[in-house]
Amino acid sequence: MKRKIILASHGNFASGILNSLHIICGENDLVEALDCYVTTDFELSKVVKNIMIKYKESELIVITDIFGGSVNNEFLNYIKQPNFYLIAGLNLPFLIELSTKLVISDSVDKLIRNSLDESKMSIQFCNETFNKKIIEEDF
Amino acid sequence: MKRKIILASHGNFASGILNSLHIICGENDLVEALDCYVTTDFELSKVVKNIMIKYKESELIVITDIFGGSVNNEFLNYIKQPNFYLIAGLNLPFLIELSTKLVISDSVDKLIRNSLDESKMSIQFCNETFNKKIIEEDF
Repeated sequence: MKRKIILASHGNFASGILNSLHIICGENDLVEALDCYVTTDFELSKVVKNIMIKYKESELIVITDIFGGSVNNEFLNYIKQPNFYLIAGLNLPFLIELSTKLVISDSVDKLIRNSLDESKMSIQFCNETFNKKIIEEDF
Repeated sequence: MKRKIILASHGNFASGILNSLHIICGENDLVEALDCYVTTDFELSKVVKNIMIKYKESELIVITDIFGGSVNNEFLNYIKQPNFYLIAGLNLPFLIELSTKLVISDSVDKLIRNSLDESKMSIQFCNETFNKKIIEEDF
């Protein structure tokens, strides 16, 4: 079964982070971006519906900008569709981990859980990390 | 003391997420974006140095795309500068929490820690959240 990642956001966040991914990891057509509300005639429900139909025969992973936002809420309507995985809180450590391992991974579900755990470790307050390092080096 | 947030990334991620923030929370000149490597003559060390000089008299918060990346590494050189706060792992729940509370918050340090904790709760695998909800409703 084919696998696909779609990044979805209010505004240009999705295409912006995809550009960062390309700079760091190279071009990859596994990942696509959906920037919502950037045109005045944008219809969220219609666009999301078309995506869900287009990738019905694939394992589809959608990563949205924020839980509780309209974009995530719209995709939540399809949460029971088989082989559909929805993640809220798009960030670069998660995206890199997921996209680089997706092709070789046995289980999409497990990969998502592991990548989420790892990305949450990577998201950090560097002042605190630095102070801890100083303290460790003092002992 | 004035406060400033700068988002810094490889490519257009920083300006992209700033666009999303504007759509959700309205325009705000508290937050600025620095897209690195989008021009061929881009010099990271020079640009970062100029930012650190410009905001020397402010409380400066820089949020970068990823820990271990060149952008975060460059800002790490200034970690000992007073009133400078560096966070790696830019994401929208964190940015909204931080930027909407920054003006009214007593302590930048505390606000960053709290916002990081809350954003990590918000970053989630919605299939899991949905299944938990179903199980809870069954009991």
